[in-house]
Amino acid sequence: MSTSVRIVGNYLSPYVRKVLVCLHLKGIAYEIDPIVPFMGDDRFSALSPLRRIPVLIDDRVTLTDSSVICQYLEDRWPEPALYPRDVADRAWARWLEEFADTRMGDVFIWRLFNQLVIRPFVWGEPTDDAVVQKTLAEDVPAVLDYLEGQAPADGFFFGALSIADVAVAVFFRNAGWARFKIDAARWPRIAGLVDRTLRSDGFQAVRPFEDTSMRTPPTEQRAALLALGAPLTKDSFGTTIPRRGVMSV
Amino acid sequence: MSTSVRIVGNYLSPYVRKVLVCLHLKGIAYEIDPIVPFMGDDRFSALSPLRRIPVLIDDRVTLTDSSVICQYLEDRWPEPALYPRDVADRAWARWLEEFADTRMGDVFIWRLFNQLVIRPFVWGEPTDDAVVQKTLAEDVPAVLDYLEGQAPADGFFFGALSIADVAVAVFFRNAGWARFKIDAARWPRIAGLVDRTLRSDGFQAVRPFEDTSMRTPPTEQRAALLALGAPLTKDSFGTTIPRRGVMSV
Repeated sequence: MSTSVRIVGNYLSPYVRKVLVCLHLKGIAYEIDPIVPFMGDDRFSALSPLRRIPVLIDDRVTLTDSSVICQYLEDRWPEPALYPRDVADRAWARWLEEFADTRMGDVFIWRLFNQLVIRPFVWGEPTDDAVVQKTLAEDVPAVLDYLEGQAPADGFFFGALSIADVAVAVFFRNAGWARFKIDAARWPRIAGLVDRTLRSDGFQAVRPFEDTSMRTPPTEQRAALLALGAPLTKDSFGTTIPRRGVMSV
Repeated sequence: MSTSVRIVGNYLSPYVRKVLVCLHLKGIAYEIDPIVPFMGDDRFSALSPLRRIPVLIDDRVTLTDSSVICQYLEDRWPEPALYPRDVADRAWARWLEEFADTRMGDVFIWRLFNQLVIRPFVWGEPTDDAVVQKTLAEDVPAVLDYLEGQAPADGFFFGALSIADVAVAVFFRNAGWARFKIDAARWPRIAGLVDRTLRSDGFQAVRPFEDTSMRTPPTEQRAALLALGAPLTKDSFGTTIPRRGVMSV
């Protein structure tokens, strides 16, 4: 693969993870500029009009939005296919991806991970326990009930691993860092599907870089990731000055 | 076309409009259940897990999310193509659609149309003039500046009319009802592109039903639309009891 693909975005973002896993599954080489969430510089705004990560830059296009990027990867490098062949299944896979991106993003990132990790460790603000309790008591079970009704007893949503499994599973890495685990007695199908997906090659390939990013202060992340062999870009669109407004989508 | 396609969603939603225009452009027959925004009944929740409109129901699948629906229409009925053939152009068309769905939805619907039309006429709440002024002074120009940089001097974003033109133009029907018009002296390219798009057959086909929906009270909409020859379904997932929570996306 001679095309150079560059990803701008941090290993802790579920949307960056979705794209990285797709790149691994398709065997596409890439470099990553792991800018810290909330810390893109002004050149980054020009790159990403809504200040979102991930951004994909290659010889043809500079793209944001993880769903648009993954579909582009599929269109340009069709094999192995990550979208079902059947048109109705393919539509349903995209719907599950959309459900994950919006509803799971809202519940697992903006409420759980934001309250338990980002607020205390990035902004130095207290966790709102009432939000966390309500999220765990109401929103998380509603999401898991829906997914349980969609998941098969074995394998993946559409037989082979697809974008739908990847899009759902990415959130359980962040949920895990917030110490949340699916109750496999209550939701056995989705617990099994997520477990199988997280154990697949693509997720395993990025896992050490994610864990290192999670426990390393922003200013030391590049050095720590480089020492671990992460495929980092030489230059960066990032700064270490926190600023609100880089969205992960 | 013997397949029966059914759309659940109101003519005033820009996302419903996007799907209807695509159906017209592809020559796909459909029926519509024009439930009033915010008024889906409980069966509607089962149909649309996030309580969003539009919903597409056909012999193969029941789908929500306008972007997922439009891509399904393209996959199942490829001609005439509404997505560019070139993979990079196709990705960029999807990005423009995503920009429109999220950023233009936020600016033109949730701020402008919501403040000037929905709040006073649906909820009986006053317009927040400060929000409207700030939106018109800052957010609308930023969106139009971005689109102006994307639009060609003539024709459409990718030569022939595509999903990108449709996705952008739908918002200017709602903006028009809120008495907003693009300043063609300041933004000539996007003003021209939107004007050409709104004059195309697909938009013209739904225009009378939209205008009628706009000036008819919810309880009388079905009768008024039927009298005008709108392709209504016989039964409905709608109620006339307003309830917050039906999202147009």
